[in-house]
Amino acid sequence: MKLGVCYYPEQWPERMWANDARRMRDLGLSRVRIGEFAWSRIEPQRDRFAWDWYDRAIDTLADAGLELILGTPTATPPKWLIDEHPEILAWDAGSRPRTFGSRRHYCFSSPIYRAESQRITTLVGERYGQHSAVTAWQTDNEYGCHHTILSYSPAATVGFRRWLQKQYGDISALNSAWGTVFWSQEYRSFNEIDLPNQTVTEANPAHRLDHMRFASEEVVAFNREQAAILRRASPGRDIVHNFMGFFAEFDHHAVGADLDAAAWDSYPLGFLDQGDDRPEIKRRYMRQGHPDFAGFHHDLYRGCGGGRMWVLEQQPGPVNWAPNNPAPLPGMVRLWTWEAFAHGAELVSYFRWRQAPFAQEQMHAGLLRPDDVEAPAMPEVRQVAEEIGRLPALGKENARVALLFSYEAQWFLRIQPQGAAFEPLRHVFAYYSVLRGLGLDVDILGPNAAVTGYALVVVPAVAHASDDLIARLAASEAQVLIGCRSGSKTINYQIPADLPPGPLQKLIPLRVSAVESLPAGHVEKAEGGGGIVNWLEHVHADCPVRLSLEGGRGIWFSHQRFHYLAGWPDQTLMRNVLLSIAEESGLSTKNLPDGLRISRRGVIGVAVNYAPEPLRLPEDVSAGAELLLGDWLLPPGDVAIWREAGNQQG
Amino acid sequence: MKLGVCYYPEQWPERMWANDARRMRDLGLSRVRIGEFAWSRIEPQRDRFAWDWYDRAIDTLADAGLELILGTPTATPPKWLIDEHPEILAWDAGSRPRTFGSRRHYCFSSPIYRAESQRITTLVGERYGQHSAVTAWQTDNEYGCHHTILSYSPAATVGFRRWLQKQYGDISALNSAWGTVFWSQEYRSFNEIDLPNQTVTEANPAHRLDHMRFASEEVVAFNREQAAILRRASPGRDIVHNFMGFFAEFDHHAVGADLDAAAWDSYPLGFLDQGDDRPEIKRRYMRQGHPDFAGFHHDLYRGCGGGRMWVLEQQPGPVNWAPNNPAPLPGMVRLWTWEAFAHGAELVSYFRWRQAPFAQEQMHAGLLRPDDVEAPAMPEVRQVAEEIGRLPALGKENARVALLFSYEAQWFLRIQPQGAAFEPLRHVFAYYSVLRGLGLDVDILGPNAAVTGYALVVVPAVAHASDDLIARLAASEAQVLIGCRSGSKTINYQIPADLPPGPLQKLIPLRVSAVESLPAGHVEKAEGGGGIVNWLEHVHADCPVRLSLEGGRGIWFSHQRFHYLAGWPDQTLMRNVLLSIAEESGLSTKNLPDGLRISRRGVIGVAVNYAPEPLRLPEDVSAGAELLLGDWLLPPGDVAIWREAGNQQG
Amino acid sequence: MKLGVCYYPEQWPERMWANDARRMRDLGLSRVRIGEFAWSRIEPQRDRFAWDWYDRAIDTLADAGLELILGTPTATPPKWLIDEHPEILAWDAGSRPRTFGSRRHYCFSSPIYRAESQRITTLVGERYGQHSAVTAWQTDNEYGCHHTILSYSPAATVGFRRWLQKQYGDISALNSAWGTVFWSQEYRSFNEIDLPNQTVTEANPAHRLDHMRFASEEVVAFNREQAAILRRASPGRDIVHNFMGFFAEFDHHAVGADLDAAAWDSYPLGFLDQGDDRPEIKRRYMRQGHPDFAGFHHDLYRGCGGGRMWVLEQQPGPVNWAPNNPAPLPGMVRLWTWEAFAHGAELVSYFRWRQAPFAQEQMHAGLLRPDDVEAPAMPEVRQVAEEIGRLPALGKENARVALLFSYEAQWFLRIQPQGAAFEPLRHVFAYYSVLRGLGLDVDILGPNAAVTGYALVVVPAVAHASDDLIARLAASEAQVLIGCRSGSKTINYQIPADLPPGPLQKLIPLRVSAVESLPAGHVEKAEGGGGIVNWLEHVHADCPVRLSLEGGRGIWFSHQRFHYLAGWPDQTLMRNVLLSIAEESGLSTKNLPDGLRISRRGVIGVAVNYAPEPLRLPEDVSAGAELLLGDWLLPPGDVAIWREAGNQQG
Repeated sequence: MKLGVCYYPEQWPERMWANDARRMRDLGLSRVRIGEFAWSRIEPQRDRFAWDWYDRAIDTLADAGLELILGTPTATPPKWLIDEHPEILAWDAGSRPRTFGSRRHYCFSSPIYRAESQRITTLVGERYGQHSAVTAWQTDNEYGCHHTILSYSPAATVGFRRWLQKQYGDISALNSAWGTVFWSQEYRSFNEIDLPNQTVTEANPAHRLDHMRFASEEVVAFNREQAAILRRASPGRDIVHNFMGFFAEFDHHAVGADLDAAAWDSYPLGFLDQGDDRPEIKRRYMRQGHPDFAGFHHDLYRGCGGGRMWVLEQQPGPVNWAPNNPAPLPGMVRLWTWEAFAHGAELVSYFRWRQAPFAQEQMHAGLLRPDDVEAPAMPEVRQVAEEIGRLPALGKENARVALLFSYEAQWFLRIQPQGAAFEPLRHVFAYYSVLRGLGLDVDILGPNAAVTGYALVVVPAVAHASDDLIARLAASEAQVLIGCRSGSKTINYQIPADLPPGPLQKLIPLRVSAVESLPAGHVEKAEGGGGIVNWLEHVHADCPVRLSLEGGRGIWFSHQRFHYLAGWPDQTLMRNVLLSIAEESGLSTKNLPDGLRISRRGVIGVAVNYAPEPLRLPEDVSAGAELLLGDWLLPPGDVAIWREAGNQQG
Repeated sequence: MKLGVCYYPEQWPERMWANDARRMRDLGLSRVRIGEFAWSRIEPQRDRFAWDWYDRAIDTLADAGLELILGTPTATPPKWLIDEHPEILAWDAGSRPRTFGSRRHYCFSSPIYRAESQRITTLVGERYGQHSAVTAWQTDNEYGCHHTILSYSPAATVGFRRWLQKQYGDISALNSAWGTVFWSQEYRSFNEIDLPNQTVTEANPAHRLDHMRFASEEVVAFNREQAAILRRASPGRDIVHNFMGFFAEFDHHAVGADLDAAAWDSYPLGFLDQGDDRPEIKRRYMRQGHPDFAGFHHDLYRGCGGGRMWVLEQQPGPVNWAPNNPAPLPGMVRLWTWEAFAHGAELVSYFRWRQAPFAQEQMHAGLLRPDDVEAPAMPEVRQVAEEIGRLPALGKENARVALLFSYEAQWFLRIQPQGAAFEPLRHVFAYYSVLRGLGLDVDILGPNAAVTGYALVVVPAVAHASDDLIARLAASEAQVLIGCRSGSKTINYQIPADLPPGPLQKLIPLRVSAVESLPAGHVEKAEGGGGIVNWLEHVHADCPVRLSLEGGRGIWFSHQRFHYLAGWPDQTLMRNVLLSIAEESGLSTKNLPDGLRISRRGVIGVAVNYAPEPLRLPEDVSAGAELLLGDWLLPPGDVAIWREAGNQQG
Repeated sequence: MKLGVCYYPEQWPERMWANDARRMRDLGLSRVRIGEFAWSRIEPQRDRFAWDWYDRAIDTLADAGLELILGTPTATPPKWLIDEHPEILAWDAGSRPRTFGSRRHYCFSSPIYRAESQRITTLVGERYGQHSAVTAWQTDNEYGCHHTILSYSPAATVGFRRWLQKQYGDISALNSAWGTVFWSQEYRSFNEIDLPNQTVTEANPAHRLDHMRFASEEVVAFNREQAAILRRASPGRDIVHNFMGFFAEFDHHAVGADLDAAAWDSYPLGFLDQGDDRPEIKRRYMRQGHPDFAGFHHDLYRGCGGGRMWVLEQQPGPVNWAPNNPAPLPGMVRLWTWEAFAHGAELVSYFRWRQAPFAQEQMHAGLLRPDDVEAPAMPEVRQVAEEIGRLPALGKENARVALLFSYEAQWFLRIQPQGAAFEPLRHVFAYYSVLRGLGLDVDILGPNAAVTGYALVVVPAVAHASDDLIARLAASEAQVLIGCRSGSKTINYQIPADLPPGPLQKLIPLRVSAVESLPAGHVEKAEGGGGIVNWLEHVHADCPVRLSLEGGRGIWFSHQRFHYLAGWPDQTLMRNVLLSIAEESGLSTKNLPDGLRISRRGVIGVAVNYAPEPLRLPEDVSAGAELLLGDWLLPPGDVAIWREAGNQQG
């Protein structure tokens, strides 16, 4: 449970550094992230370096007792480099270069940039890698931000062709896998294949899927190259990357495999405002964020980081980039911090130390105002630091529920949503949110993760289910709920020969004979309340129907401990189904009011109140428990921490 | 009344073909369409042909007794051809090539592609043209799909200049026709003229109209070239093209003139979902389609085909291309089929035989599921086939109402809508729908068609009225209802010197002194109910006012048997006016409930119920009639067929 | 109080000219504007001129006693010129040329076009500059129409670099001013700097601001070059430009400084329909326009023109360019005319004499229909002409309220709105509208104008406040209301070191510690009614709070005669605040009903009724006054004029 901050010494006069460092330390921060946008200051011209200021900045921070997280500066190649090699630029889907003038202006497939990335990483890594205060490295910054994963540059075309050649070996294998006989799309050689942009209508979905896979693997390779250099140059330090919210354009699990921990940047208000939640949700939580936004990403990235998760950028006030940027409810910065720890964060680092008065993010709040006076978040951070000092350590996370999340499944379902309302990330998030409303702790796992030890595993719309995943599900002892569209595609974006759910039929004997997407607002009512929205499947099952629509069509099928939901249940129906299955799994659930969330780590429980009104913790939580922080009746934006009943030594 | 199906032997293992053919035959199908996307399989490389498989596929189908409709494969030129001649590609309005990777990636104006189209058509035509099972040809596929009529390529520029030269002869004639003196747009030679894209603001409307005319004529010429080759190589066979729904970007009447019959592709659910009907309509008919969608196009394309009309692609289940893709109400596939026959279809062919498990349309339902099991449509088709066998033949169509539809008028009104709510296709469709709700059979005629023999002719917003049309209207004995904006432009997109309705003033003595467009939701109330929406004209008339707005402004003017409606009437007002005029025409109308539609062919009547509730046929239909199929009380999605009272031998 | 009309002799047969001129004169018009789109007729080919027709047109109009306003024809360079020098074209933000085919197809930064503009201006100026009937010149036409201020052409890039060099001298000064250390954006030379388009995400705001400043200065220079030529060639004539409504993309005050009077083009209905007013406003005023649209621009452009203002194009009926184009309520053309005079217009000129039957604007109404018959506006113009003749002259304008309007402030707030609902022009307009609803006459002043003599000065969101402005406000004796976001930026788009309102803290001791933007629909309720919408500031003040939100946060602060409003007040709150301050300023306010507006010039009062219902003037207006025109109870669309009580000789 460490606290940190993001700091840009290059943006402030050197005379301020020492005082800044002292104030950080006094506030209770122990870590500081620097350097991720400093390339033009480090190397103002090709091979002409200005290390001196950076040396002094690092030493100043280190002298104050701060641990340093150093960023590789590759998210912002300087202008001289772009002018030297304009072919570094990514191209947009309209086949036009995305130019210098902001950030992330590079194509992951540019061999020139790959070499430059390794060159600067080596230089920075070797200079500071063994510095005693350097405790971690951040590779690049927010891979993919501003939709920078897919590039349509000539370099990407060359790379894609090479990648396809490696995947398929023979062009006829590709033709067969993609089904290019359709619409006379057959290729005679890999060099005939273009990127799937600017086509007259929809390109072949397997073509698009492979393009996304290729692009994702380019990110993985780019990151791996930096990680390898840093591991060599800076042994023993953690290597992390700061992922983003609600972003699935590359495989974070694959990138995470090369990291020591997964970090992410948490901006609850910005994401609520720019997202597509219903208006009443947006109104209710305008100053708090969605009650499950942060938790979802904590649990997801804990999975990406092999159990280790950091928040590298925590929103401290209004941001500058959402359509509307209100201020957080008082207490929310403290709430978000405690919530992160309750979900296993090792570090919560605020973005940023002091609001910059210039450039693109000048309206982004910091812990300090631009005039160096404390901003509203500062006292909340001070309070958290003080509370950490006096509370017992949180125990290990012990979720009994696993939710599967596959990045590739997101690509499958975005390429051909087949229904305008089927937003696949929202589909997973809906499951997560209902599970959390039942008071359950959740691990969000990648499709290759072990599922042993869980009581309940939810597999929502994992479009392609590997044999290995199926074997793991079969070997588990959990109740397994398989959501609609799972197993609906082969690895090459085809409908399985035995129809969906394809190989998942090994787990539950049914097949999806037809599917239909439903317009927004249309509900197919289910017996017993709630109903199906967005997506409905027609199923032929050789196993019992647990629940049907009012017209009689089965929608919930069960076979031993395997369940299948033949559609997207609305919140009421999803809750009813999960509640039943959770009970059958032997899990104890709660009926949490809207906005209250609880987490347990070891014997310690943590509750946060996102609602704009006070909420009381359920009796079965508070009864016999020892309150360590806050009250059982939580004011808006407040936190309660307790030791569970009968666990006095925890 | 034949049934058929679309089949892609190249997409399935050869061992399946014979069984497929037998099952088609057993189902009651007699025709099968093949080959329209098979170019890369027929000619995998330039001048290297692979006829063998195609020979065998044709023979296999023929051996099962099926008649073949062969497609020319020009909608999907193969990659080697595009790589050989990238100048084949069309360019979008942003002056960028629309690339290979889907379909329809060619510019109609490319001289290279025109030659290639003729080459492959000749090859296919000569090889199979005299095959005894080949009964018809389809040229290309869905001209214009994915907005591929207008191209902004260099080839189109050259073609357009040449076309203008031919039209105008002298550049001063063009300058005068277009009014280029306005905004200093005068040209000194045809070679100075560019395509009307990328202009700072709206280009000259006559420039845009001529561009659309040119583009339409390129389609006509492209199709004519193929038709001429096929007529020579395959004498006695029908040549058709499969047109689309709600699509007016080229002159289908002109293309139809080179065909033996007009075919179209009927997807009622997809078009409802992607269209702009009111939400309550979309909800009510979500699983049926708009009750007049199919009828409108049947009647329209019957007119385009000189009285002969086919449905070449009939939706059999959920499609893959609308925003939302629900399943049809049980019975709808049968209903749509009978409805097509009731409107004169010679053939209804389902798209497609078996759902493909791969590529862009893998989510498009077929008669068979991808696993070769019957999909829900199959039993409905079987039922229709059986019913056709035992019912008497439908007689000749005998509509007494003609509705004029001019493609060119659509272009006129889209170039300068002058009111955001004035969608000209919706305007015609609104008239059609009200007429059909009155129980009237309707012929939709091109602007050059004869109008003799009709009791009522409706001329809705035919922006430019030719002297010949006016002479035909004058010579008819029908009541003629002229809609707003008719005759509002000269052939060169100018306001007539004597104001609108221009030469139509020969028929009815009034002139439109001013027009105004009304924001959506604003109604100018009429005396007696309903009102004017979207468009209102101020009229000086030398003939009686039949109906006025509440404020006194005349909106319905009559002179002898000619009527003028000075605005877009809402449904209530339109119904009132048409009911009155129909009565004056001696037509017998009915008050059909919402969703019930009836058609009469000879002495046979056919009713279909699009509503989600049972509907009873009016007494004056059923009284004395002999029911041949169904019931007078029609369940949702059902059909009734009867012999009319006093017509026992029909 | 002169009346005029826009006329295009080149668009009509020469035989019509003399009669047209006579009819203009008979109608009561004294001025006619011609020639602004006639380049291709004057110079059909390079250096080949056709002056003869233009000579005759001018003489014909002059012979009828009309005064001529001649336009320089530079808004429409002819095709031969574009073909000679395609580099004249502007480029769009996607880096594509905006081509010939409509109008305004030139880049202000093209040195070639700048030379051509001077060449043709010299030719026209020297030929007609001393003609006795030529009384004024219009430069170009509607600078910026169709978003033509910002160009991304190579010429603009070169010009921008040169401009930056001149502004900053040294590249390090630019780096510091822009804060390019942020995101590693540092430049080593001015030649490295590109235009801020096609960037991956938001470009540096100072970069964008300087681009807008540069582009605006290019317009100023372009106009100044023409003005200088005309002043030399045509001494003693007024030089004007016709500005547009709700358009802020260049600095109109700066352009105005080179003109003798500011003219503008008034289209109340088109602007209401295309704007973002609430639906109920759009419905209520659909045939009248917003009651403050015309007044706002009259008062704004009077300020731009140094006190002299003309309406060069007055809407006479439905226009062709708004989404919906209804007809004005009868009387509105007369109302708009009188309203213009009541706001100080010297001339109201109608666009256009006769509706053209061809080209882009063929659906734009004129005083005459295309068939040469009077359109509905004509009798209204005749009536105004007659009324002018018999009424006393209006006195001098004597507003006691000044509203500051800075074009640059618009750019500041559009570059980083920070809140989706913060439309800066709407913010100023809201203040104007509430002031007018209180019956106050308003001068809208540029940021460099003197503010002496006013009782109340409103400074709404003037993002950068110059020292000079602050000194003028300090030296005034007015109550000064400073709106939110004022002084929130330095001249280089940075947050002031002492926080907003920056140097305005010299006037009122408070600082804005944080800001937040509020989603549309969210209201922070204020004590006493109304509330804050869109934007809310957290203020630390060393002066009294006059009004707070219900939660206690202060929003209206006062110090001596200076007031600060820490947010965007809704209409109720804004009215309450302005009413209080107006009373403290000693101004007499009225409570005008919605749609009634009054203006006073000297001792003459003018009232107009925009409402669709009759409205009665308040007792304190009519009591003792001498009615000169109309009635105290104004019918919809009507005008009343009176001599104020106790001012019998005025």
